[in-house]
Amino acid sequence: MKERLVVIGGCAAGMSAASKARRLNPDLEIVVYERTGFVSYGSCGLPYYVSGLIDDHNTLVVRTPAQFAKRDIQVHLHHEVTEIDTENRRVRVNNLLERGGATRGRYESYDKLLVTTGGRPIMLPDFSLGDLAGVFVMRAVEDGVATRDFVQQERPKNGVIIGAGYIGLEMAESFHELGLETTVIGRPPQVLKRFDSDMAQIVQDELESKGIQLSLGDEVKALEGDAQGRVRQVVSSKGAFEADLVLLAMGVQPNTALVETAADTVGVALGQTGAIATDSQMRTNLPDVFSAGDCAEAHHRITGRGDYIPLGTTANKQGRVAGTNLGGGHAEFKGIVGTAITKVLDVYAALTGLSEKEARALGYRVQSTTIKAGSRAHYYPGGRPMHVKLVVEEGSGRLLGGQIVGDEGAGLRIDVLATALHKGMTIEELSRLDLAYVPPIAPVWDPLLVAANVALKE
Amino acid sequence: MKERLVVIGGCAAGMSAASKARRLNPDLEIVVYERTGFVSYGSCGLPYYVSGLIDDHNTLVVRTPAQFAKRDIQVHLHHEVTEIDTENRRVRVNNLLERGGATRGRYESYDKLLVTTGGRPIMLPDFSLGDLAGVFVMRAVEDGVATRDFVQQERPKNGVIIGAGYIGLEMAESFHELGLETTVIGRPPQVLKRFDSDMAQIVQDELESKGIQLSLGDEVKALEGDAQGRVRQVVSSKGAFEADLVLLAMGVQPNTALVETAADTVGVALGQTGAIATDSQMRTNLPDVFSAGDCAEAHHRITGRGDYIPLGTTANKQGRVAGTNLGGGHAEFKGIVGTAITKVLDVYAALTGLSEKEARALGYRVQSTTIKAGSRAHYYPGGRPMHVKLVVEEGSGRLLGGQIVGDEGAGLRIDVLATALHKGMTIEELSRLDLAYVPPIAPVWDPLLVAANVALKE
Repeated sequence: MKERLVVIGGCAAGMSAASKARRLNPDLEIVVYERTGFVSYGSCGLPYYVSGLIDDHNTLVVRTPAQFAKRDIQVHLHHEVTEIDTENRRVRVNNLLERGGATRGRYESYDKLLVTTGGRPIMLPDFSLGDLAGVFVMRAVEDGVATRDFVQQERPKNGVIIGAGYIGLEMAESFHELGLETTVIGRPPQVLKRFDSDMAQIVQDELESKGIQLSLGDEVKALEGDAQGRVRQVVSSKGAFEADLVLLAMGVQPNTALVETAADTVGVALGQTGAIATDSQMRTNLPDVFSAGDCAEAHHRITGRGDYIPLGTTANKQGRVAGTNLGGGHAEFKGIVGTAITKVLDVYAALTGLSEKEARALGYRVQSTTIKAGSRAHYYPGGRPMHVKLVVEEGSGRLLGGQIVGDEGAGLRIDVLATALHKGMTIEELSRLDLAYVPPIAPVWDPLLVAANVALKE
Repeated sequence: MKERLVVIGGCAAGMSAASKARRLNPDLEIVVYERTGFVSYGSCGLPYYVSGLIDDHNTLVVRTPAQFAKRDIQVHLHHEVTEIDTENRRVRVNNLLERGGATRGRYESYDKLLVTTGGRPIMLPDFSLGDLAGVFVMRAVEDGVATRDFVQQERPKNGVIIGAGYIGLEMAESFHELGLETTVIGRPPQVLKRFDSDMAQIVQDELESKGIQLSLGDEVKALEGDAQGRVRQVVSSKGAFEADLVLLAMGVQPNTALVETAADTVGVALGQTGAIATDSQMRTNLPDVFSAGDCAEAHHRITGRGDYIPLGTTANKQGRVAGTNLGGGHAEFKGIVGTAITKVLDVYAALTGLSEKEARALGYRVQSTTIKAGSRAHYYPGGRPMHVKLVVEEGSGRLLGGQIVGDEGAGLRIDVLATALHKGMTIEELSRLDLAYVPPIAPVWDPLLVAANVALKE
């Protein structure tokens, strides 16, 4: 009998793993259960689908279930796994489209199991999606479709976004593009909480300069609706904001409900972050049970600890590693350095490694340097300033992290710092890099070198 | 008495050194002799001045002699040093603006000497600039001004560029922007000779698609003029090209005439490349004589040899190192990895490290991988393909070099490979990098990671 791999969740990590395992092992039976109506999609594209920049939500899909079927990967959409029974090596699956299927599960056996249940949006207390019309999250393709349909049908005027992280700000751009009066409410006193406040301020300035209202250091108390059950306003500690469209974007937490609720029988160990702990091969503590993606931790190369920074890049890489090992090969996930980037209107904000406050909180003695420099040769028209912040360990001079805010070319430069972090580069080594120079996109002293040189002097 | 530093040549290397030495040592007397009418200018901006994109040639100047004077750095424009007398620690200087000054020199003493005489354009045999009107090179600010003045006054129709390197192609863009029928004649069978031919082909396609004629593998035999002494056609081994504007762009060689002609007395050692050899502190073999920039070699970190790749980035870094040591500090130039980039119409072509042919010529056993991938998320509109070529040492898996052709964001990615080369990264390490992902500028698997993954499989 064929060995059977069951994959729970068909987004980036799950489908990367399934594809990789299939390539390595043509004999494996591979079955994927996905709760939503889509697998293998780029959820990061949803804000651009909502704004209309991307016309058809199907373009977000990399491969359809039919395409996976051709590779002999069985994908079951609208199937929710509700129980893992490791003793009998089986999972309980509900077919959500069957009449009564949501509660009447069947058991399916596995030889190897991959848990890629992803992340789930953090919700307001005492509120469920569906309580009020006009309130959305942005996670599944269906979320994007529902939001865009609502916008087209209801023509909302006042959009309120609760949460000022990546998704919150990218959706603020979408709402702005759609012509809505847009307000972003955030609990921390700044946007993009992983960034240091000086860098976040530049993004805040950009948002406010384009007419987007910010209410930071603010906490949402309630969503209030009208008699028809449509959202009408958001009440916060700082006031009340008129709203006929609300997006909840308070972040994502590891979707570990499946392994937690059945903790006694399942016993998948979680890490300190609350996400599933794995080794470098993406194995959990249980035999033949692997995990990857937004439900799992990732080894952070700078801190040496398991961290929870749920991003598509990591999910894809971890998925590929899991798939290699599940397919009979050998691969290890060597960790992240915490690279992330977002586009907010006309600026990109990027970071890698540790921010200054993160480094200090972890007990590092750090020195930070922030510079503003042109992203092009000074004489080349159209140049825009970019801001670079470097965080350096005192004594060793080792680079601990970097943040960049500026135009497209500025944002892409974060990858140089990410590469430097992978190899534990010092600020002195950074200052000596032989970086490219061509007037339309880079000055003869690249801003990264300027920053490194200034850091060396300080 | 004050110690006196004499700097011969006031472009990037010379003025970086002068500025750095001044900051470290307020007591040093610093005198710069510059043959042209400008110091501290961005010669890489000249093509954009000729095309009219940059309006005023003065914007190319970073600092004027008056600004240097405020820092107590004496700059003498139009002063040519014709002799170095190391025995008596003096140089012979001609004031080119004085009547008869070009031949009547005076001696000026030095305690420390910095030779930053730069590069000089390679010329056609049996031809001197000035033999025919309408023939130019592109090196000094004056060259750009003369070319633009000629274009405005004479309204040439047919521009021929001899040489298909960086300057040749950037000037082809300028000529094209000016509306000239433009032809590029190159001796090698491809443009951009350091690149591998498969990557150069993409640039050639771009040039030809925009109507620029290429005659490669062709050798210029003669420039012919009319009765008024104006250039009329370029005769080559492949035919004759009508031309009322000609640019000579056959590359640059180290401007070592000064130290060569007086070899007996001066005795500055040249490296195998023909450029001035220095140690890591930019000292030549002679006591208190330093060199930096386009007249000097640079240590190549991959090959471990002295190389001659004259670029503004290296000149600035070497100048700063020289200036530090001349000013009483200590600094070392740790070498280049051969990073270069050029913009040709709508594509950027970038390389770092060794090309495949360079690596093979040096005796490396190499494997190369070339991929084409989108520079944005597949669903984000406006994406363009980018081409990545990686050159990897067989056995060790060490990255030896990379080439990228594509849009702006593609070109900037060369810096990631340059950083990887600085730290001797393997292709496996490269494939694990935690690079940034945001749909408008980078797909979830960055093209660099795709290339590394493909290289790993091969």
